[in-house]
Amino acid sequence: MMRDEQLAPGAVIGIVGGGQLGRMLAQAAAKLGLRASIFSPEADSPAFDVAAFRHCAAYDDAAALERFAEEADAVTFEFENIPADALAIIERRSRLAPPRRALEVAQDRLEERRFLTSLALPCAPYEEVGSGARLAAACQRLWTELPVAALYLKKTRLGYDGKGQMKIEASSGVGDAETWLGDEPGLLEREIDFRLELSVLSVRDRQGRTAFYDLPHNIHRGGILRESLVPAPVPAGIAETARDYARQIADALDYVGVSAIEMFAAGEGLLINEIAPRVHNSGHWTRDACAISQFENHIRAVAGWPLGSTQRHSDARMVNLLGAEADDWRALLEEHPDRSLTLYGKREARPGRKMGHYTDISPKG
Amino acid sequence: MMRDEQLAPGAVIGIVGGGQLGRMLAQAAAKLGLRASIFSPEADSPAFDVAAFRHCAAYDDAAALERFAEEADAVTFEFENIPADALAIIERRSRLAPPRRALEVAQDRLEERRFLTSLALPCAPYEEVGSGARLAAACQRLWTELPVAALYLKKTRLGYDGKGQMKIEASSGVGDAETWLGDEPGLLEREIDFRLELSVLSVRDRQGRTAFYDLPHNIHRGGILRESLVPAPVPAGIAETARDYARQIADALDYVGVSAIEMFAAGEGLLINEIAPRVHNSGHWTRDACAISQFENHIRAVAGWPLGSTQRHSDARMVNLLGAEADDWRALLEEHPDRSLTLYGKREARPGRKMGHYTDISPKG
Repeated sequence: MMRDEQLAPGAVIGIVGGGQLGRMLAQAAAKLGLRASIFSPEADSPAFDVAAFRHCAAYDDAAALERFAEEADAVTFEFENIPADALAIIERRSRLAPPRRALEVAQDRLEERRFLTSLALPCAPYEEVGSGARLAAACQRLWTELPVAALYLKKTRLGYDGKGQMKIEASSGVGDAETWLGDEPGLLEREIDFRLELSVLSVRDRQGRTAFYDLPHNIHRGGILRESLVPAPVPAGIAETARDYARQIADALDYVGVSAIEMFAAGEGLLINEIAPRVHNSGHWTRDACAISQFENHIRAVAGWPLGSTQRHSDARMVNLLGAEADDWRALLEEHPDRSLTLYGKREARPGRKMGHYTDISPKG
Repeated sequence: MMRDEQLAPGAVIGIVGGGQLGRMLAQAAAKLGLRASIFSPEADSPAFDVAAFRHCAAYDDAAALERFAEEADAVTFEFENIPADALAIIERRSRLAPPRRALEVAQDRLEERRFLTSLALPCAPYEEVGSGARLAAACQRLWTELPVAALYLKKTRLGYDGKGQMKIEASSGVGDAETWLGDEPGLLEREIDFRLELSVLSVRDRQGRTAFYDLPHNIHRGGILRESLVPAPVPAGIAETARDYARQIADALDYVGVSAIEMFAAGEGLLINEIAPRVHNSGHWTRDACAISQFENHIRAVAGWPLGSTQRHSDARMVNLLGAEADDWRALLEEHPDRSLTLYGKREARPGRKMGHYTDISPKG
């Protein structure tokens, strides 16, 4: 089916995934007079509560996917691990952005590394591991080459928020990592001695115009983002290089929408860690510190609308609320009347689950 | 039924009315992890598209009102002209804020003037008119007393956006105003020679704490708000007096939530024009220029949550898009990449209908 390149107000934006990113995307679509339609397998998905249309079905329910895609004038996603079959159904019936290739690259860590290498972009050195059985030999090789305290073993597929990865300490050896990986392929990386973690948030339209938000400095614990601070304390030259890398990636993928490229600023320069082909947790502060948020600019790009400015009016500190931390919402609000709190409407506060976040803004320093 | 004074995340906020104010209130509730439930008679109400629960029924459908009120942990409204019977049903089953008394005062222009007079607050001089038959004599009296070019005849009930009022020119006489008023009561006012129109947006919590947004300067045409500019060009003393009047009104009503008091800055000082017991069009800029918007602060007050700051980080100009003006959305966005556009998702662009608005922010001057 041919679809207009530029959606009109009232058009339907399909969003695959019903978490907090889908929720904030749906709200951004509504701000622009567009109607959001959410596809998610979980009945209590946070995004359902703010969307005009709701499709609750499994990712292998072809008929439900067809109805969802037929209804939508364009489809995007908050969640990149969409099964290939589901993607094919959507692509035949609606316009998908970001493009399929971006999903394929982001779905597979090995594919992602090969893609970056093909662009001659720097990423952390890694070693492919065919399966658990080959792990011990690979670890031994890396430890002999360069003694480091720890290695990270990562499954190639479906990893996020520290899932799908495991730390292997030199002192305790491979242990049960062999069983954990099993027959899956994986990759092994040395622990990187980085100074700080950054992400490059950009938005690219269908004509290839790209705009960048200022870089946040991201602080992780246990593989989960805890804080983003803007601006990141990096020299202008480093920021320029980071944006250049992100631009090369977006251009190579003929990308449409917001992406987040996570990087390490290490002694040897910038190393690219991960490509997120979607709006990103490290960009939540844009709702409070910019005229146009990452969510709105993503929707504008997907809808073929003019992009908005990515300029900040304020400095910002965004803090994630994990699990029971969100129970302190009252004290958090009382502590700072300017604090902007966002809660995701999730019923169950499992440990480590992202339940909300807050942003404190301050005049630009 | 007794209800907790302080709602927990996940609680349901009932909102009476399904227009753009209800839509932005529902989005503010969702930001805080609360679930919005909209009651509106129109199936295509803009607020339905962003709410967790939808009640589409007439204001005289008692069973539907009961279901709506039972489901809600607290009820508020975007629309003050709720019939008294509907209000009684809601009040028996849920907690209503702002309070009933504020609605009663705002629903009736004569009641409003008497209330202001009882507080010794200044409003434009007016003359009661019992019915159309008594109009000519009342006009004659005013014209004899003080010759002015025009008088405004206002019905006492259900007036907003220039509806329920009529201009009577001295040159053409009473004309068909007599028939227009019919058996209804009305009030007659002289055209006021004001320098500018202001509104005082404040939020008051259950403990009586009140916070004020900076005053916007409002520009109307044909009785409809066209622009709000912040800050308004008024001396600090005038702004202080305006806030003091608004505080007296809120205290006298034991008000909870956001209110907007429209005033004229005239030669003789400030004159109070109208009390809006709800979030207000002249406060839309707070979504773009403040850390905490009028919508969020209203929901916080209704939910018994700590109020947020009312401070601005930027100057702002908000412009309403009426009828077909919203069709120019693309040019408006291209003109200014920092422009924040909001479209209300209304299907039909009738002349004068509020279809959306935009806000331009700039560093504080």
